[in-house]
Amino acid sequence: MSSALFVIPLWLDLTAVAIGAIQGAMFAARLTERRIDLLGVALIGVLVGLGGGLLRDVLLNQPPAAIFDNWYIPVATAAALLGMLLLRVFTRLNGLIIALDAVTIGLFGAIGTTKALAFGAPVVPAVFVGVLSAVGGSILRDVALNLPIALMHVGSLYAIAATVGASLLVVLVSLGVNVIVAGSACVVVTTLIRLGSVRFGWSLPEQRALGSWKVWRRA
Amino acid sequence: MSSALFVIPLWLDLTAVAIGAIQGAMFAARLTERRIDLLGVALIGVLVGLGGGLLRDVLLNQPPAAIFDNWYIPVATAAALLGMLLLRVFTRLNGLIIALDAVTIGLFGAIGTTKALAFGAPVVPAVFVGVLSAVGGSILRDVALNLPIALMHVGSLYAIAATVGASLLVVLVSLGVNVIVAGSACVVVTTLIRLGSVRFGWSLPEQRALGSWKVWRRA
Amino acid sequence: MSSALFVIPLWLDLTAVAIGAIQGAMFAARLTERRIDLLGVALIGVLVGLGGGLLRDVLLNQPPAAIFDNWYIPVATAAALLGMLLLRVFTRLNGLIIALDAVTIGLFGAIGTTKALAFGAPVVPAVFVGVLSAVGGSILRDVALNLPIALMHVGSLYAIAATVGASLLVVLVSLGVNVIVAGSACVVVTTLIRLGSVRFGWSLPEQRALGSWKVWRRA
Repeated sequence: MSSALFVIPLWLDLTAVAIGAIQGAMFAARLTERRIDLLGVALIGVLVGLGGGLLRDVLLNQPPAAIFDNWYIPVATAAALLGMLLLRVFTRLNGLIIALDAVTIGLFGAIGTTKALAFGAPVVPAVFVGVLSAVGGSILRDVALNLPIALMHVGSLYAIAATVGASLLVVLVSLGVNVIVAGSACVVVTTLIRLGSVRFGWSLPEQRALGSWKVWRRA
Repeated sequence: MSSALFVIPLWLDLTAVAIGAIQGAMFAARLTERRIDLLGVALIGVLVGLGGGLLRDVLLNQPPAAIFDNWYIPVATAAALLGMLLLRVFTRLNGLIIALDAVTIGLFGAIGTTKALAFGAPVVPAVFVGVLSAVGGSILRDVALNLPIALMHVGSLYAIAATVGASLLVVLVSLGVNVIVAGSACVVVTTLIRLGSVRFGWSLPEQRALGSWKVWRRA
Repeated sequence: MSSALFVIPLWLDLTAVAIGAIQGAMFAARLTERRIDLLGVALIGVLVGLGGGLLRDVLLNQPPAAIFDNWYIPVATAAALLGMLLLRVFTRLNGLIIALDAVTIGLFGAIGTTKALAFGAPVVPAVFVGVLSAVGGSILRDVALNLPIALMHVGSLYAIAATVGASLLVVLVSLGVNVIVAGSACVVVTTLIRLGSVRFGWSLPEQRALGSWKVWRRA
């Protein structure tokens, strides 16, 4: 291991998992025309809460934390069931959930990036693993629900926020900044970009070939 | 390794793989409007037969049995081709196939759960790994065919049967029951629940928020 | 390790990754009605360029090359952006891209098969891993874009070319042929079958049960 792990307390990691699972279950519970049963909603919640971490550990060829610790799966399952049962309450708290989710992306990104660095991944792949940790749950949700993957489409900056945050982290760490400080900076920057994009409608342009850009400029 | 592996003879494991592959190929072969070619049908068969075991070993960070043993892939491929060629015969034997498949879910669940325990997973993740071993092939099939994942939708109890069986297994093992006895109990209980749900139409309710439950009760 | 790895120079491996990424990005960039943003197109490119190698290393339970080497992800990302920006140029060079892609399938197949043999996989799974290395990027692309998996449908011989090439490789290696010679034969044969199927419209028959074959013969 070439650098210190950005260790966050287990309760904070589990809180992030729970927020992801609540969001995932709420998302699935709203697709009422799909006739998803209780188990399906719970499964989507668990997938959103734990998916990023599972992808991270599989890519790093490490035993997945969620499989070798007794806490993750029960917490994700309970949170998913809660999200499903209290759908109306949580829908009213939607602003709070989005804010907490932005912090969650930042936390998962920081944990994923530093874990990748700690197990010997170079800086660019470490950022990649960090971003996948942050957004993997949402990707797996869309694949499992047979929907287009939301984050690949024009919309608010979800993966970009995680990429900027994770990149900042590796730059700071390679400049010798303490990992706790670098990790915290990653969380703050990711959260701010994500919330800014929700609040102000920032988005990435649709893909466009160079040829059509010229046409667009002339117009 | 903290507990003994529920070792079943290789021929029995391969039989379970073959039944999965036959079912998978039959399923794909019936989607005639999709213009799936011979290779596609064979691939789906292989995926259904081997997918659960592959997911199990990836989650446990172990070398996948199907990749480091020469038997699994040929057996799954041959069974998938057989399922495709003898579609009419097997369709007439559909009751038998469903019964054998129910046993197969039980076997995969028991193998997956005990393998997870043996490699040090705590009880809750062990049940999770067992259930994924049992139903993973069917999940991968639906993702590969770009269909909604069947087991998340209102219908017969497929994953629930595996969950009850795997939970029974870990309870019995932690009470000190011999792993062969616990594994056999898992297979029997899983099979009975699955067959009961097919026979008597048991199903899990559609997801519903607490609010709508109240409305529904008043009605 | 039971046999020598078919080591190709890093620049050649990265060239194969880049061709895959260019193709993937071009594919995604043409789906204009999907409103995929810049990041989405780049992600698809990276997935096509790196997906086969990632699947290969996960199945072999090895640390993925793309994660523990600093070159793969930047090269794949740059190639994907290039494919997106120069869509018109590359579209005019489509014949060249298809030819290079056929070589790429051969290279990925040869690398995957020999890597599997080197890490102790028996011959049949080694062919399986080789084929997945060759076609995995394309499978992941279709899953991520929520499209039917192209190679399972009636069309040109993509996976078959890789299967024949990888099978030839393991036969030659088990006959004692030098791994460089066997690997080169795999690349040549895979490329020729793939190009022949594009040029002459070779394809695998649609799946059909034995019963319907009889009907078809009588007609």
